[in-house]
Amino acid sequence: MTHIRTDLAIEAHEMLTEAAAEITGVTMAQQELHGIPISRVLIESDEAAQKMGKPRGHYVTLELKDLNIAEGSDYENACFALAEELMALLKLSDKSNVLAVGLGNWNITPDALGPKVVQQLMITRHLHTYIPDQIDEGIRPVCAISPGVLGITGMETGEVIRGVTDTIRPDAVIVVDALAARSTNRISTTIQLCDTGISPGAGVGNKRKALNRETLGVPVIAVGVPTVIDAVTITADLLAAAGEAGSKALGLAPDFDPDEGRATLWQSVPEALQQFIVTPKDVDLLIDRVSKVVANGINLALHKDITFQDIDAYIS
Amino acid sequence: MTHIRTDLAIEAHEMLTEAAAEITGVTMAQQELHGIPISRVLIESDEAAQKMGKPRGHYVTLELKDLNIAEGSDYENACFALAEELMALLKLSDKSNVLAVGLGNWNITPDALGPKVVQQLMITRHLHTYIPDQIDEGIRPVCAISPGVLGITGMETGEVIRGVTDTIRPDAVIVVDALAARSTNRISTTIQLCDTGISPGAGVGNKRKALNRETLGVPVIAVGVPTVIDAVTITADLLAAAGEAGSKALGLAPDFDPDEGRATLWQSVPEALQQFIVTPKDVDLLIDRVSKVVANGINLALHKDITFQDIDAYIS
Amino acid sequence: MTHIRTDLAIEAHEMLTEAAAEITGVTMAQQELHGIPISRVLIESDEAAQKMGKPRGHYVTLELKDLNIAEGSDYENACFALAEELMALLKLSDKSNVLAVGLGNWNITPDALGPKVVQQLMITRHLHTYIPDQIDEGIRPVCAISPGVLGITGMETGEVIRGVTDTIRPDAVIVVDALAARSTNRISTTIQLCDTGISPGAGVGNKRKALNRETLGVPVIAVGVPTVIDAVTITADLLAAAGEAGSKALGLAPDFDPDEGRATLWQSVPEALQQFIVTPKDVDLLIDRVSKVVANGINLALHKDITFQDIDAYIS
Amino acid sequence: MTHIRTDLAIEAHEMLTEAAAEITGVTMAQQELHGIPISRVLIESDEAAQKMGKPRGHYVTLELKDLNIAEGSDYENACFALAEELMALLKLSDKSNVLAVGLGNWNITPDALGPKVVQQLMITRHLHTYIPDQIDEGIRPVCAISPGVLGITGMETGEVIRGVTDTIRPDAVIVVDALAARSTNRISTTIQLCDTGISPGAGVGNKRKALNRETLGVPVIAVGVPTVIDAVTITADLLAAAGEAGSKALGLAPDFDPDEGRATLWQSVPEALQQFIVTPKDVDLLIDRVSKVVANGINLALHKDITFQDIDAYIS
Repeated sequence: MTHIRTDLAIEAHEMLTEAAAEITGVTMAQQELHGIPISRVLIESDEAAQKMGKPRGHYVTLELKDLNIAEGSDYENACFALAEELMALLKLSDKSNVLAVGLGNWNITPDALGPKVVQQLMITRHLHTYIPDQIDEGIRPVCAISPGVLGITGMETGEVIRGVTDTIRPDAVIVVDALAARSTNRISTTIQLCDTGISPGAGVGNKRKALNRETLGVPVIAVGVPTVIDAVTITADLLAAAGEAGSKALGLAPDFDPDEGRATLWQSVPEALQQFIVTPKDVDLLIDRVSKVVANGINLALHKDITFQDIDAYIS
Repeated sequence: MTHIRTDLAIEAHEMLTEAAAEITGVTMAQQELHGIPISRVLIESDEAAQKMGKPRGHYVTLELKDLNIAEGSDYENACFALAEELMALLKLSDKSNVLAVGLGNWNITPDALGPKVVQQLMITRHLHTYIPDQIDEGIRPVCAISPGVLGITGMETGEVIRGVTDTIRPDAVIVVDALAARSTNRISTTIQLCDTGISPGAGVGNKRKALNRETLGVPVIAVGVPTVIDAVTITADLLAAAGEAGSKALGLAPDFDPDEGRATLWQSVPEALQQFIVTPKDVDLLIDRVSKVVANGINLALHKDITFQDIDAYIS
Repeated sequence: MTHIRTDLAIEAHEMLTEAAAEITGVTMAQQELHGIPISRVLIESDEAAQKMGKPRGHYVTLELKDLNIAEGSDYENACFALAEELMALLKLSDKSNVLAVGLGNWNITPDALGPKVVQQLMITRHLHTYIPDQIDEGIRPVCAISPGVLGITGMETGEVIRGVTDTIRPDAVIVVDALAARSTNRISTTIQLCDTGISPGAGVGNKRKALNRETLGVPVIAVGVPTVIDAVTITADLLAAAGEAGSKALGLAPDFDPDEGRATLWQSVPEALQQFIVTPKDVDLLIDRVSKVVANGINLALHKDITFQDIDAYIS
Repeated sequence: MTHIRTDLAIEAHEMLTEAAAEITGVTMAQQELHGIPISRVLIESDEAAQKMGKPRGHYVTLELKDLNIAEGSDYENACFALAEELMALLKLSDKSNVLAVGLGNWNITPDALGPKVVQQLMITRHLHTYIPDQIDEGIRPVCAISPGVLGITGMETGEVIRGVTDTIRPDAVIVVDALAARSTNRISTTIQLCDTGISPGAGVGNKRKALNRETLGVPVIAVGVPTVIDAVTITADLLAAAGEAGSKALGLAPDFDPDEGRATLWQSVPEALQQFIVTPKDVDLLIDRVSKVVANGINLALHKDITFQDIDAYIS
């Protein structure tokens, strides 16, 4: 079986299904919400978790039709759909207070999604402390931090966030992060929510790094968007896209399979070449757009009865 | 007695001395180190602390001769002098690990000093964990964070840092912050170190906000540089600088005293006007320069036997 | 007579009127447009131009009610009003092509208004060259540049823009710049349009620096917003605001006049102190907001029958 | 013959040589300068120019040993070597004035090399105008501009720069730009100088776009550094690096040639996939480093008898 290298549960599921692998313990459902296609993957057994390379839990994927999100209604529908799915996972009470965490390195464009989302959130926890009488009903106490990455802080992100949650004691944590996908056409167009938090190096079992209910003591919802693919993946994609004439000219086997090709390349290519990242030319722009959708989806989920105008007035 | 509004102990001392106030419990000494004038103020009694508007402890002031720090040797001497004074306050052992905290809002230029310093520090704590064999002797474990301000995070900075120190358990904390001074010519040219930490709203006694040995459980050294003055202060400075003819034309009392004038203005001017801040035109540039001096002074204090070239190679 | 130091014609007019100076050759009218108060000053004679310290021409001032521009309709009304006034000054034909110029230094927050506005404009000139068939009717060819300031380029801005206009040959030029005002409450709330271009050091007669019809050969409309005041002005404002008790305590003459005080201070205060600039604490935020209003006012003026959604879709 | 897609003359030469193509009219020489390997390619005939896909002229390549440039002497040697090669191409007199142009889009990290270099240059032309007596001998008048790209300005860069040179009349122009290479290991480590300027879409013959002696009327020296490769190139590189076992597993022809593979892929892969760019993960950092080498090489070439300390004092 090919080893699965993707942060998206839906891609892991696709790969297993294509490979005709038996995957009892995984259920998959699809639906459309506000015009946005939604997929829900539920991993129920430990065996399925191991096969999928993901912890047991709920994984929800939203697919944005268009990178441009030019039309106002498409953009608003994406925010509404994200908000509803997020509310279903968060299960907040009226008084719940939430900590949002923007993971990633703000100095590296494709890794800056988390910090970019966080700076567009409606931060209100301090208002509940200092001017409780001036806050509209439905505005929950929300706080946020973008701690930076290991190379910048010298601290595991898990350590920093555990320290903050121990002091602040939120009722839930939302972590936002940039993901890697295995398909070029998911970049900036797919949003994944899950209730399993973030487990970097999942296979390694390094508990200091994980951000989940087990390590933080409260529910942890992760929101992620693929922003890069790796050099091996684009190679497999290009070979698969070369067509019959191209494949023949390259001397490729006629039954070339991109997933197998990817697995082969991971094993045979020097590490130095694997370190390259592949992004669309306009990655800065794409991340600006999708970060606004994610931020406002979260804003609409955390605060009740607010409008886009309320958010604009609060944030800008 | 005029109320003292300055973050600098040396200015508070000057004001009291000028006012001929009795200040037993405060000693003051001056010295030159690497060509840099150093002043040391020691506040020993509670009574003196109250008069000075500062907690009991050591306050060290370095005065950079020139904003430009153009010549290489002046710049390096400033770093060396800062490093030596910092080492004297920190009293680290060879194995001490240190957390540096950059206070302030990175979106507001004159408040961004702390974050700017932190991003120029040699962060090494993670290397002690992951590649201990590859670290030169003398390189202590250093970690750092710039948590952001209340309006950005919704959390008191003291809460965030207390959470982080509880988890990371450093042997000492260095906090870097932009200060307010009462004199235009101290902006970006004065560096103050103290062993009393930071106590925002010192008179108010809000413990959640303080960053000091009492709240964090370890020694806290504060490093600050004045980057702004307030509108009231520039007004008093301008009036005092108007000269005899100017004062007469303005109808000012001939014995106008800027400190009394400042106190009067604080009481009589509407709050909206007090909210203006005054900076030199080239404040962005000045903060870039002084933040490099502060960062490298800290780097030289925390790591033994390193050169400026080592730092450049590590940071850039 | 006090020398007039303000970039705003309306302030110059107020000062002259207050001083009861005779100002034949200047007419002033007021109106409300989309709920926005508009003032129009017309300087018709050379004598009036000299008294006002401004070239002969039309000066239009819009006053935004609120810094926050929180409500969507207030913001849109400000854009619409600006667009209509701009169209009246520009007198474009359907085929006119326009060059927009963002003046100022993008590294200094209060001076970055011009570059910030320019980067939010709908740039379309290249589309008319490369994909003329795909452009909607009403979209005029618009190009733009933010040339940087003398210290960054080593070239007078006038030289750079004259070179570009000689090659590009636009039908009109719009220059956007940050201004100085004499009143704190105009910062980020007042937008001035004029058909006289920009004449830095107007009194000096340095033609290389001016950006106007005479130097560029085409109509030049200037759009400006006050973003700073100087230290002398805030001093005069604070003294005037000190009230009776404050004035008495300061020893100020009971008939203290802020305009005369300002003039006196300009003459008596050392230049080093005059170099300080005064801004609101949240100047970064204020400039972001007002630059969006200016940019979209220009967008609505230059392109026909477009909506805010069209602009968002095009720009972001 | 495979079509050559590289901005580097040295790569074009290698490809032709490997392909055993006859290339009379091209000479190649190698040398070491300050410890930096230098290659010089001279294209002398029109026929050779066509084969190489580059205009007739001199192309000089410097190869930096190490991405890190950690040691001070390596960094300084790279600057000195670049400065000497640049002086040889520029042939300035003592009074020559030079315009530097930073090409590329400052919003897209790997395309921001030109603007980043320009902002580290010693700009002095305005000092020769305003304070000629205070300038040290040997400091030539240098001005600079980063005009932005077509999508930002709506104007061809060639148009903007032609307008500026017509007004400013420099004796020489230096254009700095990010390049594409065909080899991953040239990214940020190779600097190419040439005296043929920049000819985007060289085959197309679009004169409005070229920046060279023909279009600007003065010598134009181009300085470029590869910062990206395209998705097709990384694919060919990965396949070539897959080794015997990998190639067999992929079903690749045993005599797979990466240059032929690249040519085949360009023809067979959909354009959407070709639009991806490939960079090292730490591209932001790499560009910061190499831009400092390029800037200071230019500074040392344009101004006589200056030291690195002089530059630091002037720039920062």
